Amino acid sequence: MNLNFASDNTGPVAPKIMEAMLAANTGAAMPYGNDPSMDEVTQGIRRTFDMPEATTLLVTVGTAANALALAILVQPYETVFCHRTSHIELDECGAPEFYSGGAKLTLVDGPDGKICAEALRAAIERVGTDLHSVQLGALSLTNLTELGTIYTLDELRTLTGIAREYGLYTHLDGARFANACAALGCSAADMAQGFDMISFGGTKNGCMGVEGIVIRDPEMAQQAQFRRKRAGHLWSKNRFLAAQMQAYLHDDLWLQLAAQANVAGQRLAKGLREVGARLEAEPAGNMIFARLPRQAHNRAFAGGAQYSLSDENGDGVLARFVCDWSKTEDEVDALLALLQGKSAQNAATSAATA
Amino acid sequence: MNLNFASDNTGPVAPKIMEAMLAANTGAAMPYGNDPSMDEVTQGIRRTFDMPEATTLLVTVGTAANALALAILVQPYETVFCHRTSHIELDECGAPEFYSGGAKLTLVDGPDGKICAEALRAAIERVGTDLHSVQLGALSLTNLTELGTIYTLDELRTLTGIAREYGLYTHLDGARFANACAALGCSAADMAQGFDMISFGGTKNGCMGVEGIVIRDPEMAQQAQFRRKRAGHLWSKNRFLAAQMQAYLHDDLWLQLAAQANVAGQRLAKGLREVGARLEAEPAGNMIFARLPRQAHNRAFAGGAQYSLSDENGDGVLARFVCDWSKTEDEVDALLALLQGKSAQNAATSAATA
Amino acid sequence: MNLNFASDNTGPVAPKIMEAMLAANTGAAMPYGNDPSMDEVTQGIRRTFDMPEATTLLVTVGTAANALALAILVQPYETVFCHRTSHIELDECGAPEFYSGGAKLTLVDGPDGKICAEALRAAIERVGTDLHSVQLGALSLTNLTELGTIYTLDELRTLTGIAREYGLYTHLDGARFANACAALGCSAADMAQGFDMISFGGTKNGCMGVEGIVIRDPEMAQQAQFRRKRAGHLWSKNRFLAAQMQAYLHDDLWLQLAAQANVAGQRLAKGLREVGARLEAEPAGNMIFARLPRQAHNRAFAGGAQYSLSDENGDGVLARFVCDWSKTEDEVDALLALLQGKSAQNAATSAATA
Amino acid sequence: MNLNFASDNTGPVAPKIMEAMLAANTGAAMPYGNDPSMDEVTQGIRRTFDMPEATTLLVTVGTAANALALAILVQPYETVFCHRTSHIELDECGAPEFYSGGAKLTLVDGPDGKICAEALRAAIERVGTDLHSVQLGALSLTNLTELGTIYTLDELRTLTGIAREYGLYTHLDGARFANACAALGCSAADMAQGFDMISFGGTKNGCMGVEGIVIRDPEMAQQAQFRRKRAGHLWSKNRFLAAQMQAYLHDDLWLQLAAQANVAGQRLAKGLREVGARLEAEPAGNMIFARLPRQAHNRAFAGGAQYSLSDENGDGVLARFVCDWSKTEDEVDALLALLQGKSAQNAATSAATA
Repeated sequence: MNLNFASDNTGPVAPKIMEAMLAANTGAAMPYGNDPSMDEVTQGIRRTFDMPEATTLLVTVGTAANALALAILVQPYETVFCHRTSHIELDECGAPEFYSGGAKLTLVDGPDGKICAEALRAAIERVGTDLHSVQLGALSLTNLTELGTIYTLDELRTLTGIAREYGLYTHLDGARFANACAALGCSAADMAQGFDMISFGGTKNGCMGVEGIVIRDPEMAQQAQFRRKRAGHLWSKNRFLAAQMQAYLHDDLWLQLAAQANVAGQRLAKGLREVGARLEAEPAGNMIFARLPRQAHNRAFAGGAQYSLSDENGDGVLARFVCDWSKTEDEVDALLALLQGKSAQNAATSAATA
Repeated sequence: MNLNFASDNTGPVAPKIMEAMLAANTGAAMPYGNDPSMDEVTQGIRRTFDMPEATTLLVTVGTAANALALAILVQPYETVFCHRTSHIELDECGAPEFYSGGAKLTLVDGPDGKICAEALRAAIERVGTDLHSVQLGALSLTNLTELGTIYTLDELRTLTGIAREYGLYTHLDGARFANACAALGCSAADMAQGFDMISFGGTKNGCMGVEGIVIRDPEMAQQAQFRRKRAGHLWSKNRFLAAQMQAYLHDDLWLQLAAQANVAGQRLAKGLREVGARLEAEPAGNMIFARLPRQAHNRAFAGGAQYSLSDENGDGVLARFVCDWSKTEDEVDALLALLQGKSAQNAATSAATA
Repeated sequence: MNLNFASDNTGPVAPKIMEAMLAANTGAAMPYGNDPSMDEVTQGIRRTFDMPEATTLLVTVGTAANALALAILVQPYETVFCHRTSHIELDECGAPEFYSGGAKLTLVDGPDGKICAEALRAAIERVGTDLHSVQLGALSLTNLTELGTIYTLDELRTLTGIAREYGLYTHLDGARFANACAALGCSAADMAQGFDMISFGGTKNGCMGVEGIVIRDPEMAQQAQFRRKRAGHLWSKNRFLAAQMQAYLHDDLWLQLAAQANVAGQRLAKGLREVGARLEAEPAGNMIFARLPRQAHNRAFAGGAQYSLSDENGDGVLARFVCDWSKTEDEVDALLALLQGKSAQNAATSAATA
Repeated sequence: MNLNFASDNTGPVAPKIMEAMLAANTGAAMPYGNDPSMDEVTQGIRRTFDMPEATTLLVTVGTAANALALAILVQPYETVFCHRTSHIELDECGAPEFYSGGAKLTLVDGPDGKICAEALRAAIERVGTDLHSVQLGALSLTNLTELGTIYTLDELRTLTGIAREYGLYTHLDGARFANACAALGCSAADMAQGFDMISFGGTKNGCMGVEGIVIRDPEMAQQAQFRRKRAGHLWSKNRFLAAQMQAYLHDDLWLQLAAQANVAGQRLAKGLREVGARLEAEPAGNMIFARLPRQAHNRAFAGGAQYSLSDENGDGVLARFVCDWSKTEDEVDALLALLQGKSAQNAATSAATA
């Protein structure tokens, strides 16, 4: 039994994705996306996002997708507004600064990992347009957020509207784009509206390693190709990235996998509340931050559960649980049982044999 | 029948590599190389290269491997000596400059795609140590070279010796490292001797997308990790890179695959000579540059053969043929037949059904 | 009468500095600091800072001095801890990010423009050493601070001590280093203790354009030369920078000029309080932030006074006044008179004839 | 007597430039070019260059002017075509690569330090437009060239015409722009025609440290401001740069000073030929490369003459002589006398008392 809740990227590759990769391994194919499979990806994204002119570049890592997108949207002397807890600020070892040639990130606050409109406006005004300051560049939002919460479509519209008002470009870090769509019951086109570039994540959601950089503007797409190549992110055997993305888009597999992850996440959230954990914010999809009593935590770790801890002070711990697409009811329940101390032994046994 | 000789990266993934990737897709695994499979890769490389302290970082693209290696070896105000025809100069869209923060490449000449010792020494002396000039940084060699020729071990020793004399670090672009070892009949350790960093290529030689950055010095390895992360080249599902590399190292699969490619390449070279093509340089492994009469070329393209042309002027063409690990005798012979105009029809039919 | 309090860089060049520049304009001199005058600067700085091995590089702009220093102290994947209001964050258009190849600035809080020890420690701990985060690089302090306040020597020691504890390098932005020394009555050596690099400012304090980058470690100094050259900050006619710095150091002119500026600043601060302005923080030297009633402000601007406004909301304004070395009692009093509405006419007349 | 022929930047500041700087030192002036003196510079450049919309940014070092200009003209993934001996390639320690974020320089050949049209066209074609290569960016020419030769206006038109044909932007490194105009007897407008940006040099030609970046396109000028600030090249006391440039433009002082330098240079060239030196290329202005017999060279150095040597092998030396604006007939003759061994003693005495 898989009790690894450390991240959605600890999960396996979904069978349909793996099958598509196997199927792509037939004979020779022209490299660098010059085989027909990439055209199908382009069409698939345009259809799914309802963007008839969009260009899509595939890379294998979300950090690369974000950094490439931002490097195209901002000049080196500009700044990107993002939430204080965003992945681009905390978890990319300075990739946006590297790719953009030294652009700055200006951190914006807001409860529950979400930028609040007033804070954004104030931050923009504070940066201003003085020659001595970095200049206004772009707004980057993340949905699902890094705290597992969600922006509603209205909230996204408000923030991208403010960006437009100030001439900022807009980027959506969609590492969990699919989970957000599944949670809101909206289409990819709804989610993408108002954004110039979207990092459309596949890796956390059942792919092996594929992220689509979806680019609205054909001119931006042109330079994106050179930046991807120059960053060492143009695959020669691109057919294996295209195969993943094709399968991911086919019959909305991306939505199905995310829905599965969300169901597991919501079951886990409900269960955590029942066992007395305090949830840090309302989890919208497959990621939950919860404060656990230390005893419960110790039992779970002893029982073989895996999840990450962001804060261990005091008598409790702050734990992050993420359900990937493969998480089953049984696995969620086994984790809950461990935390409760009910059937710890059973769960431990199952975990050991996983 | 596969008549694609455009590159060794047009070929399929070798069965043992693909099987290893499938086998790795079992349950959960900690991300970012923190699962046991990466330890096995480390051990495998240390053994294969006879470098008991080496660190290996996996990335998926050769350009990334090269650029990361160079960024660690040189300061932004230094220069990398490389052959005028090297991949880092001609085929990476400025990746070394990007990763290194603007280091320069100083081009060195030499026949057959190989740096000659006198030219290297002269180039180093010309750069000198004046404050106004870029400073001496590193030497980067490529074996097999970009022209399909090979440095002997002695030649490598001479050049790395000159580098050492001037305090230059040394890097080996080993996109076709395996083909070079197979051609020379030497070990990986022999080939790697005298180099601070090696880009140990897998992608062109039957892997899906994996390159090992082999780093001799533990301190350099430390910063390499941050640079890889920051470049967006740290895979979360690293187990699928580790699986490729494990299988590649296992029972010297890397050597076997390269030997297969070389055998096909040598058969092709011999055949090309027989059909009257003029070879540009002595092909040591799986890549051949040959001048073809235009008629022969037209027949081959009409017959479905694929290869790249670097020069179409005059009545002939300069063609580059590369054999990947999967190329069979039959495929080579079919190409030669097309060029000769012998059995063009047969070959065309076969190609169409490939 | 000079009623320009907009900045200490609006002031003229001090006579002794100008004379030294004139005196340097005799015949030929070898360029790039290869004339004897630069040796004298080196000796002068070593004596003044009691750093027998220090290297000094001259540049003409404080932003360049700061950015060069930081680029040497941190790797591109590291972060610099600095106060939220620091010049490197707010007023350099991203120069530290540019020079360092994309290092990050991590903002630390603390009242009165000063980093507080607990906040620093917390910020360092928050960044941590995780692979996914930027890494710990350097601490940059500013004295006088950007709010015109001052760190005591004890406070500096505490903060540089914390830096050392975590392996951070230390940089002092000394755009107003002299004013801080004058205010504390301490030596340059006292102020510089615990710092790896100091931007020793001259431009705001009576020079035309010269800043010394004072570097403790000879190895760092080596690469600093290349970085300066490459940034276009190596003057060919360096003798005119050396002349400024020689005169500035001679007989502690730097301290005298700063003392004059501080006296004017303190007189102004006292006067502002008397006319009912609310000072934002305790001004230690020559820079004062004060909230003025709008009427008083209007009178002063109408009367020809110049100073900058950082906040104009409400019925008052937040004004920044800076006294350069040349400010006289009369000029300070004239400004105060304008604000009070007492002798506005007189002052206006004087200003008009300035 | 000044026998320093090492560079035109070893010379003193011209009296009218120094006087203008002194005159600018009156009372307060708003910093960063926000005082009226910068407007006058703008008008002066527009008039002199007959570019009614040109923007001019002042910096103090030619390397900075060149690097800033190129960083605006090219993307990081593009290349700049320049002569193999150009200053941006050999003498700027990688500044163009640094400022541009890693753009490449592609070296073009041609006799006498001048790019030849066929070589330029071939180099452009070789870079091509393949995705894997750096992309076509800009052409940078230097006039006077680094070998002291000159492009005629026709030659410039031909080369900028080729650039336009391929969509390359154009930059003129005008460190010795004035000497070129004086030599050709043409106007600044003539020389600047066909260039998008000009580095208009003052420092080598009698200024203390000022270079104008002349920018034709207002949009490019906008971003140039931020890049200059971010590079630490925006002077607070910009009035002292403006004063230099105003005086330099006034009554075409720039042309007069260059004419003086050229006259001295031509006298020296003639004399060198007479004493049997072999000139490397036809010197058009104030810089001469000449092969001297070793004996003559030894006499000159013993006599106190200074000039740089680029090649000391064999029985002769390759010497570079540069005459700055202040060089007199007597000084030139004294150098020639030393080389000839005629009146070595006299000259030595004079030199010693200089």
